[in-house]
Formats: sequence, C-alpha cells, structure tokens
Amino acid sequence: MDFSDKRHAVLVSLFLLFLVVLLPAQARADDPLPSWNDGPSKQAIVSFVEKVTKEGSPDFVVAPERIAVFDNDGCLWPENPMPFQAAFAFDEVKRLAEEKPVLKEDPMVQALLAGDIGKLLEGQHHDGLMHIIALTHAGMTTEEFTKRVEGWMTGAEHPKFGKAYDELTYQPMQEVLSYLRANGFKTFIVSGGGADFMRVFSERVYGIPPEQVVGTTARVTYELRETGPVLVKTMDNLFIDDKAGKPAGIHQFIGRRPIAVFGNSDGDKQMLEYGTINNPKPSLGVIVRHTDAEREYQYDVNSKSSGTLVEALKDAPARGWVVVSMKDDWNRIFSEP
Amino acid sequence: MDFSDKRHAVLVSLFLLFLVVLLPAQARADDPLPSWNDGPSKQAIVSFVEKVTKEGSPDFVVAPERIAVFDNDGCLWPENPMPFQAAFAFDEVKRLAEEKPVLKEDPMVQALLAGDIGKLLEGQHHDGLMHIIALTHAGMTTEEFTKRVEGWMTGAEHPKFGKAYDELTYQPMQEVLSYLRANGFKTFIVSGGGADFMRVFSERVYGIPPEQVVGTTARVTYELRETGPVLVKTMDNLFIDDKAGKPAGIHQFIGRRPIAVFGNSDGDKQMLEYGTINNPKPSLGVIVRHTDAEREYQYDVNSKSSGTLVEALKDAPARGWVVVSMKDDWNRIFSEP
Repeated sequence: MDFSDKRHAVLVSLFLLFLVVLLPAQARADDPLPSWNDGPSKQAIVSFVEKVTKEGSPDFVVAPERIAVFDNDGCLWPENPMPFQAAFAFDEVKRLAEEKPVLKEDPMVQALLAGDIGKLLEGQHHDGLMHIIALTHAGMTTEEFTKRVEGWMTGAEHPKFGKAYDELTYQPMQEVLSYLRANGFKTFIVSGGGADFMRVFSERVYGIPPEQVVGTTARVTYELRETGPVLVKTMDNLFIDDKAGKPAGIHQFIGRRPIAVFGNSDGDKQMLEYGTINNPKPSLGVIVRHTDAEREYQYDVNSKSSGTLVEALKDAPARGWVVVSMKDDWNRIFSEP
Repeated sequence: MDFSDKRHAVLVSLFLLFLVVLLPAQARADDPLPSWNDGPSKQAIVSFVEKVTKEGSPDFVVAPERIAVFDNDGCLWPENPMPFQAAFAFDEVKRLAEEKPVLKEDPMVQALLAGDIGKLLEGQHHDGLMHIIALTHAGMTTEEFTKRVEGWMTGAEHPKFGKAYDELTYQPMQEVLSYLRANGFKTFIVSGGGADFMRVFSERVYGIPPEQVVGTTARVTYELRETGPVLVKTMDNLFIDDKAGKPAGIHQFIGRRPIAVFGNSDGDKQMLEYGTINNPKPSLGVIVRHTDAEREYQYDVNSKSSGTLVEALKDAPARGWVVVSMKDDWNRIFSEP
C-alpha cells in the first residue's frame, strides 16, 4: 500500500466515522425532542411550533399569546397505582394517627388504615375521602403544609419503580416543556391536583413557577399572628379543577385561551376542546395514552386511578388531537433526577 | 479679540452648554423614575431595588422571587369620583335600559337612572349594587363582556379630566412598573376590581399580561356550543379581592409571598402586612396618598369612592411603609397615552 492509498484509507475511515458517530450525535444535539421516536406524533408537535413561531407567516402567533397548558397526573408524571397526592394523603393519615392516637377512633381513618378504600368512596360526594383530604390538607398554615409535602417527598418511594415520586417525571414531556419555552411559550400546569401540593415542587421539577400552576384550590384565611402573617388552609369554596372546571380555571387564573393543550384522560376533554375548537389561532391538542405495561402502565379504562380515557379518545380523530402512544412514540420514559 | 480668544470663548460656551443642557438630559435619561421628585420616597424605592438585585449581597433576592404587587384603583389610576368599573357598570345599565326597555321597570335600575346611589347601597350586602353588578357582569359570555368593556372604554370620558379612562394612568407608577421589570421583577395587579374587567386593558395599558392580574372573580361555566366553546359569566362563588382577601388572593393566584407591595387604601393594609411583616426576604411597602386636589384629588377619608386611608396610614411608620405624597413626590401625574 503506497502513501496515497494509506491516506485514502484514513480519509474514508474518517468520513465513515463522521457518518456513523458524529453526524447522528449532531442530529441528536439539534433535536429538541430526543426521547421521542420519529413519527407522526413528534412531527405534529414540531410542525406546530415551527408554524406559530415563523414571523410573517399567516400562522404566526405573537409570543404573549403562546400559552401551553399541561395536565399533571398521567401527563407529566404517572397516576398509578394512585395519584401521587392521594399517596401523600394516605401516608399523612398514618403519620398523623401515630402523632395523635385519638385519630385512630375516627371511622374513616380506621377504614383507610385497614385499606378499605371502597368505604372512603361511598356516597355521592365521597364523604370519607373528603374527610381524609380535610384532615391532611386543611387546618394548618400554608407554610406548614409546604413542609409536610417536602418531608413526604423526601422519604416516600413509588411502589412499582422504587424511586422518589418527584424523580418519576416523563422525560419526553420535560423535553416538550423546554422546547416550548425555548420558542417563547409560557407553560402552565392545569391539573385536578391541589395547587398548593403541586407548587411545592413545580418550579424545581418542571421549571414551572408557582404562579403558572392552576389546580384544585380552596380558600385560605389570613391572620396576623404575633409571629407574623399566616394563611390558614380551609376546605371552603373548593374549586375542583377537572373536566368543565379546567376551561373555567384557565379563564379564572390565566385569562387567555391556550393554543397548545396536553392531557391524557377524559378529565382533560373540555380543556382540549377549549384550546382547539374554533380557536381563531392555530392550535394543538395532544393526548398522552398509557400503552406501555412494561415500562410504565397500560390502561384506558381499567386504571385504578382516575385516568379513564374513553370520550376524549373517541373524539380525537374528528378534533385533530394527536394521540401519543407511550410505548411507540417514546424511546425513554423517565427523566434522570 | 484674537483667534485664540475666540476659540476659548467657543470652548467655554460648549462647556456651559454641556453643563446646562446635555448633562441634565443625560442624568434624566439615566433616571428610571424621572416623574418622581428627588426625596425620601424615590430614594426608598431605588435603594430597595438596588439592594435586592445586587448579587453577592446578603439582601440579594433571586429573580423568580422578585414578586411585586400593585393595587389598581387609586394606585395605578384614579378612583374618583367613583371606581372606573362602577362608571362602566352605570353606563352599561343606561345602555341596556335603552336596548331592553323592560329593564326600566326594575326598581334598582330606576334608582340608578335617577342617580339615587344611596338606595343601591342599602342593606348589609348592598343588594341593589350587587343586582346592578349582576346585570352588567354576568349572564353573558366572557368574549361578549370583553367587547362591552372595550366599547365603553373607547367612548367614555372621565368627568373631571375629559379624557378616556385608560389615558389616566399615573406616569410615576408606570415608571415604577417598568423600572421593576427592567430589574427582573414580575409585576402583578392585585385589586378589588374585577379580573375580567382589568384584563381587557392591563397588557396594553400597563404591560401586565392577563395571567398577572388578580382581582375579584366569580365562577364561569363552560359550554360547547355549535359555534364553539364559550364561558358564561355568573355571580357564583364570588371572591372579593379586598382587605384580608388580598393576601388570600395572592396565595391562590400567585402562590408566592411578594417582596414589594404598592397600595393606597385600607383595602391594601393586609397585603402590605403580608408582604412586609417578618418576611425572611427584604421587602418594600408603599402607600400612594392622594394629596393633590389640583392635579388629581385630595382625600384620606372623604373620598366618594372606596379609597379610605386611615388604618394603613396609622400603621405606616411602625411598619416602615413609605408614604408617597402625590403633590410633593410626583412632578407629573398622568401618562401620555
């Protein structure tokens, strides 16, 4: 082999190396959604963002109007075997029952400690469950509540994945959040979960500040104590941010119609409608479908949680909503902490 | 005069010109608050902003925690001879009574048309006034309500100043809003006025987007009509964002404790307390006092409006709240449109 051949071989090798290693790495670096497999779901999200951010195009939307809303349970993190906030409430009841043994005489606390969830859900208004929520979510200051959630989050572990709950956010959705924000969107959580619960971790975990978290809320009462001002949590004027409550909550807390809506269950149907039906601006509706029994969960209707997906799924084709399959569209499920 | 003298004279002239014209212009250009006279009020605002934005200093506050809240009526624009939203409601009743003459048989509409405001305020809950508010603020879609406010704002004129209401914002407060935002603060309105009313103009007039407007709100109900989704305004679950409601509203809608609070009446006392008493971060409380009968209004207690300032003024010295005198601290009152 003469020198020129050798040089030729080196050049070819370098070129192949470039094709095999460096080019895909570069493509990955440019890809805002690397945990999404190429396909129609990913394409729909990227096309939408490119369309509304292209100045001069008829689909251009000015930055302040780029409002994106995300359900939390089942959309940004799992909701099985029960919504994480329910796990918090149940763990709290156990902790409180140790702290104040008189609580063990409470029939609903007894039912919970015995694992009799059915009893908690009896009655039209799930009186037992509401009682448990009141025990764990009202009667303390907002600062005390924040401390309890932080304490629980530090110690608790998810039964299937063996990790802290806040280490179980979906990496592909984290990428969507970052991608939208990099393109001038303001990202909001609009969830049935408690606003006070989610605000404890939303900024740290999702980069979503407390003021962009819309959730279930109740009135707090203001008191000026010797130690300073406090806000005491109550169960009064409960606003449940679910189903038709979601567009109402979006109006009350955000005051603009969103142009991008991400959900995963029938509880998100009305907010998907509100964002996408006859919106004068271009809009995107996305449903995350739980199709991955191995890496996460597989359910549409048989969730033990509240994440039933029947009506919204039926409407999706006519409404043009993108249905994401976790199994097929996502090459990775969970974020690194 | 020889050549050198002439040149000397020119140089001296240019130097004087520099001192007299250009130097102050430069100083004005560097002054973020040119409509504020030099004095303790202006100094307190500037010192606070410089302190919390100085990295490495013990008083440094990270940008996401720089939350500033502003009352609207009497703080960002006047509230006399009545809150501007009341003027809207009264004009609306007159318009509606022409549109639907049957309304003229309504005793409270009759009272209003006859100028008998006393009758509207009778009873513990001001039933007449609430009835007028319901007539003008509920029973229509949010889009229809927005159109009505926009239409009114275009046509109506303030009785004293002869200008459109939205051309009467306070220039010194507009400068504070811009100055805070330029220093990484997020500015919010926290007002007893209706959120749906203020959101119509807050972004255009103050640069405050709808999602940063906290106000009095009631539930809206979601409907999917043939023409698309709508939200219908009701009077249910009324939340009055005044007095102790203000810290509660700040918690519910913002979810963080503010570090800068601007108000002007006893309705702002609790939010001033919430922001400034035993706040672990440095904080600033400011009361705008109406002391200028000529250029605006002069009142503490004799306002025809709701802007009574007695208790908060009494507390100001002990709390360290800055009391701004419109007459003495402001060299200009209103913004150019």
